[in-house]
Amino acid sequence: MRQSQLFTKTRREAPKDEVAKNAQLLIRGGYIHKEMAGVYSYLPLGLRVQNNIRQIVREELNALGGVELIMTSLQRKELWEKTKRWDDKAVDIWFKTTLKTGGEVGLAWSHEEPIAEMMKNYIASFRDLPVFVHQFQTKLRNELRAKSGIMRGKEFVMNDMYSFCLGEEDHNRFYNQTIEAYKKVYERLGIGADTYVTFASGGAFTQFSHEFQTAVENGEDTIYINREKDIAINEEVLNDETLQSLGVSRGELEEIKTAEVGNIFNFGTQKAEALGLYYKNEKGEQVPVWMGSYGIGITRLMGLLVEKFADEKGIVWPESIAPFRVHLVELMGGEEVHKEAEELYRELNQAGVEVMWDDREARAGEKFADSDLLGIPLRVVVSEKTLAAGSFECVHRASGKTEHLSTSELLKHLTHHV
Amino acid sequence: MRQSQLFTKTRREAPKDEVAKNAQLLIRGGYIHKEMAGVYSYLPLGLRVQNNIRQIVREELNALGGVELIMTSLQRKELWEKTKRWDDKAVDIWFKTTLKTGGEVGLAWSHEEPIAEMMKNYIASFRDLPVFVHQFQTKLRNELRAKSGIMRGKEFVMNDMYSFCLGEEDHNRFYNQTIEAYKKVYERLGIGADTYVTFASGGAFTQFSHEFQTAVENGEDTIYINREKDIAINEEVLNDETLQSLGVSRGELEEIKTAEVGNIFNFGTQKAEALGLYYKNEKGEQVPVWMGSYGIGITRLMGLLVEKFADEKGIVWPESIAPFRVHLVELMGGEEVHKEAEELYRELNQAGVEVMWDDREARAGEKFADSDLLGIPLRVVVSEKTLAAGSFECVHRASGKTEHLSTSELLKHLTHHV
Repeated sequence: MRQSQLFTKTRREAPKDEVAKNAQLLIRGGYIHKEMAGVYSYLPLGLRVQNNIRQIVREELNALGGVELIMTSLQRKELWEKTKRWDDKAVDIWFKTTLKTGGEVGLAWSHEEPIAEMMKNYIASFRDLPVFVHQFQTKLRNELRAKSGIMRGKEFVMNDMYSFCLGEEDHNRFYNQTIEAYKKVYERLGIGADTYVTFASGGAFTQFSHEFQTAVENGEDTIYINREKDIAINEEVLNDETLQSLGVSRGELEEIKTAEVGNIFNFGTQKAEALGLYYKNEKGEQVPVWMGSYGIGITRLMGLLVEKFADEKGIVWPESIAPFRVHLVELMGGEEVHKEAEELYRELNQAGVEVMWDDREARAGEKFADSDLLGIPLRVVVSEKTLAAGSFECVHRASGKTEHLSTSELLKHLTHHV
Repeated sequence: MRQSQLFTKTRREAPKDEVAKNAQLLIRGGYIHKEMAGVYSYLPLGLRVQNNIRQIVREELNALGGVELIMTSLQRKELWEKTKRWDDKAVDIWFKTTLKTGGEVGLAWSHEEPIAEMMKNYIASFRDLPVFVHQFQTKLRNELRAKSGIMRGKEFVMNDMYSFCLGEEDHNRFYNQTIEAYKKVYERLGIGADTYVTFASGGAFTQFSHEFQTAVENGEDTIYINREKDIAINEEVLNDETLQSLGVSRGELEEIKTAEVGNIFNFGTQKAEALGLYYKNEKGEQVPVWMGSYGIGITRLMGLLVEKFADEKGIVWPESIAPFRVHLVELMGGEEVHKEAEELYRELNQAGVEVMWDDREARAGEKFADSDLLGIPLRVVVSEKTLAAGSFECVHRASGKTEHLSTSELLKHLTHHV
């Protein structure tokens, strides 16, 4: 894409009411626009990053046998009454609205109840199980706090997956596979080593649920880890009983700040019983379906990656989800330089490398500052100087490392790397 | 995809309260699930069709220079008050809700006001114009009527594009290009010849706006056309003044039933003036931006395609947006037949042909009835009979035409066609 075609512009200053680093940088870079506290639009560059994160999650979940669908934002009150979760006292983040045709409806903060209800149409026999479905959904949550930028919003995108199994054994197998799939996602996003599978509060059915927590400065959460024993515990379940059951003492634990990047739940048969989701087993008996739910925050991950990798100059995207692979920066230098830039742009596109070409009329300093702020992994500079040298100046955003590469060397580097 | 992995099942009967043919067939095929009147979830097959329609629209709009973004569902009351459209008397389809942090917010039924407001951050000078942006957005509309299945819902997906231009001339050029781009979309969906650009009511600024109306039985709208003069007029503007200005008489017009599949608006400078969106021209004067908006209903188009092409056996998808290109139907016939089907499945996938393989244990009659209902363009049957004949039975869903093709002939047919 030519940068001159992008309507967004970088800004020196973020809005004064924005305290989170992720939102400050993303707004300054023109990735997002703040509609109101905790509510952000995704501009072209931001949408590209979001879509790249979605695609990684999609690939890993489809590989598990998950099939993608999309549920609705408007939800029936009656379903949530069955599980006693309609009341604002039970769920304090509901947005609700009223139909002109009469009656209240909820706006989706979760899809557990509607999806279990829907599955009653499709699950009747043991032959229909297991079923794994997932969606990328915009969730609306009426949060009181909204100080974490896109990491905790009133409107955000998450992937939620639901498993419908024959029983505990069947469930546990899929549950453990999902832990591995989520780990692969974090690995591909460059946060694998800093992401912990933690013990979290379990709800009515199980002693613990599991969360995925990534170490990050200014994280909203605190966890306690023991690297040798590979144990990580959420603050809310850090008590004598937990320590004893995990075989670790308080003194062996290190406290770190983290952000939650995923969570998974074992519902047992509780939800199916409440909503009437049963199947007939081989003996002809009616058995409640064993359900699980799995959530991974797409926009939250985007915010986390900014928080975690940004430096004093701006954003530093991991290569796997950057809006573009290459930022081709043409410095003003007349027709020859422009032609060279155009030719390289053409060749990179032809090789399938996603490239943003800064073809704007602007000073070198401004272009470099913008490029640093935007955080595209590889900056390739075309100027009179590089023309004379017969090679391009290639600067890696993350390391700052500079190389001088010819077109063929650059192409080899980029296509080898894919 | 293997059909055995799909959790959805076909049904003999649609829900009794569903009167629209499109929803009846889509529910019976497992494409969609009805959450409540006018609110439908998109199941795996339905999501594939929706995504295919999105992709066609995306390609045509990006070719115009449109850049994609995604706005929010939650919207600020203050913006709509500026244009006097917050009041339920002015806009009778609002869903509204309340923030825990205080104050009312609207749920997106349109994005005209928020996007004009946002552009104030990016448009300052004539150098910043024109700008064309578009999104695929889930709109919420508090409709009283909901009898048209997915063609008029309370929650639906549309693509809305917005143009920001220097003035009328600049605007008209893009407006006319968009008409052509929309026509290309309808052409690719197989409804080009039956889709009319109509004169519709114009609002405060222009005498007419334009709608795109497709001839279809049971359409909600009525239009009046003259094929020779290439004129089409919406019912609401059919009066003496209109007839005179278009140079056509009532007697020369034919009345047909249609469904609206797109509309485009010229706002002039009215909206920019109301919201304060100005740019500085070459003389340094502040000039209001000339705006246009363009809408094309993604889920509505999906419904229309069902209405228009379905026959008594079920859905008939146009090839360009079908969930799969080939329905590989394996009839039960032991190991040999299964191996042959598996091998063909592998080869088709390898050739990049999207194929659903009916690998279920079911009778031939059931499989054929399901295949007809699902409406995938080409059915390829693998059975003991086809094995003996050394060729596959290939049935075109639309025409019913049957051919017997070898693997190489089939691959040639499919890859040649792409």
